[in-house]
Amino acid sequence: MEFQKTVLKRRMVRHFAKDTVPDRVVNRILELAQHYPSAGFSQGVAYVVVKDPEVRKKIGHVQEEEGYVSMGFHPFISEAPVVIVVTVSEQHYHRRYQESDKLQQGGTEIPWPTPYWFFDAGAASMIILLAAVDMGYAAGFAGVSNIQGMRDLLGIPAEFHPVGTISIGKPLPDKKSGSLKRGRRSQREVVHTEHW
Amino acid sequence: MEFQKTVLKRRMVRHFAKDTVPDRVVNRILELAQHYPSAGFSQGVAYVVVKDPEVRKKIGHVQEEEGYVSMGFHPFISEAPVVIVVTVSEQHYHRRYQESDKLQQGGTEIPWPTPYWFFDAGAASMIILLAAVDMGYAAGFAGVSNIQGMRDLLGIPAEFHPVGTISIGKPLPDKKSGSLKRGRRSQREVVHTEHW
Repeated sequence: MEFQKTVLKRRMVRHFAKDTVPDRVVNRILELAQHYPSAGFSQGVAYVVVKDPEVRKKIGHVQEEEGYVSMGFHPFISEAPVVIVVTVSEQHYHRRYQESDKLQQGGTEIPWPTPYWFFDAGAASMIILLAAVDMGYAAGFAGVSNIQGMRDLLGIPAEFHPVGTISIGKPLPDKKSGSLKRGRRSQREVVHTEHW
Repeated sequence: MEFQKTVLKRRMVRHFAKDTVPDRVVNRILELAQHYPSAGFSQGVAYVVVKDPEVRKKIGHVQEEEGYVSMGFHPFISEAPVVIVVTVSEQHYHRRYQESDKLQQGGTEIPWPTPYWFFDAGAASMIILLAAVDMGYAAGFAGVSNIQGMRDLLGIPAEFHPVGTISIGKPLPDKKSGSLKRGRRSQREVVHTEHW
């Protein structure tokens, strides 16, 4: 699909058909996601791809999907045929920036004014969300609140921080997030020219 | 441009021609960037777009561009005709999650296990980087190390954290980052199926 059309068409979808997503689609989405930028090309983002309905149900439970359902949403996390759990390792970045070409004068690691591992996870997730649309599917992101619960469920090492789940499937009509009533902020509000 | 082609073509460019980027291109890039997802649709990302050559020079200075130049890179931050400084407000998210529909039972704000403001800034930046390529230009991201220096230079309020500069222009042959020698991590390394 045309890039701009993909960006404009994408929205968080919260209701999915049972139809499976072919492996070649999931693989292609993740292949494209590997083209995210990362500080020092550290590439600290890693994924757990879950299709097993029982495990998806458990992921929905860790994600407190019941809360969404009680508010009238569909159980969009567990019902989607594929859930990609996005994780990132802060340690991965520290190890990279302790390599000789990244050390500061004096041999110390940079002070990291911004936790770029989360920024990079956002960039990679953006590609996944768009790639799903490009390939004729839809996706919905949900942040992880129970970090350790998600680690325990999927055997994610302590070094990796699960940031969210991306549910992928064919979209069905869904209940819209109440947040959308806020409206998209206009460029006038968020873009400053030459100086704030 | 086709979405997948855009993703595969995009790379961090660190040398730009002097040719100006038309305002309609810059505006369209930022219009597309407004389609980033954000926690609670908070939309805490804001930008300063700089074209003035003197200010770009000062941005290059705050970004310690001299360091890149001493390593044989072009002065890619100040030489690009357009620099977009990406900022995000954590406070913006706290205010959103103190609204009634986002408070937890008991009336408290969620504990924020992940700083989603940086994740969202990464998602928005990813759209900008891709949109530049889609429109026939190239882009290069550089993290901000001197946060307060950047705020002071551009009058960015204390609430906003400048995460990086995105230089946009027509690409010229550049010196490649040494980090690329690491190679892209394969899917085998980063994708786990059903369980880590």
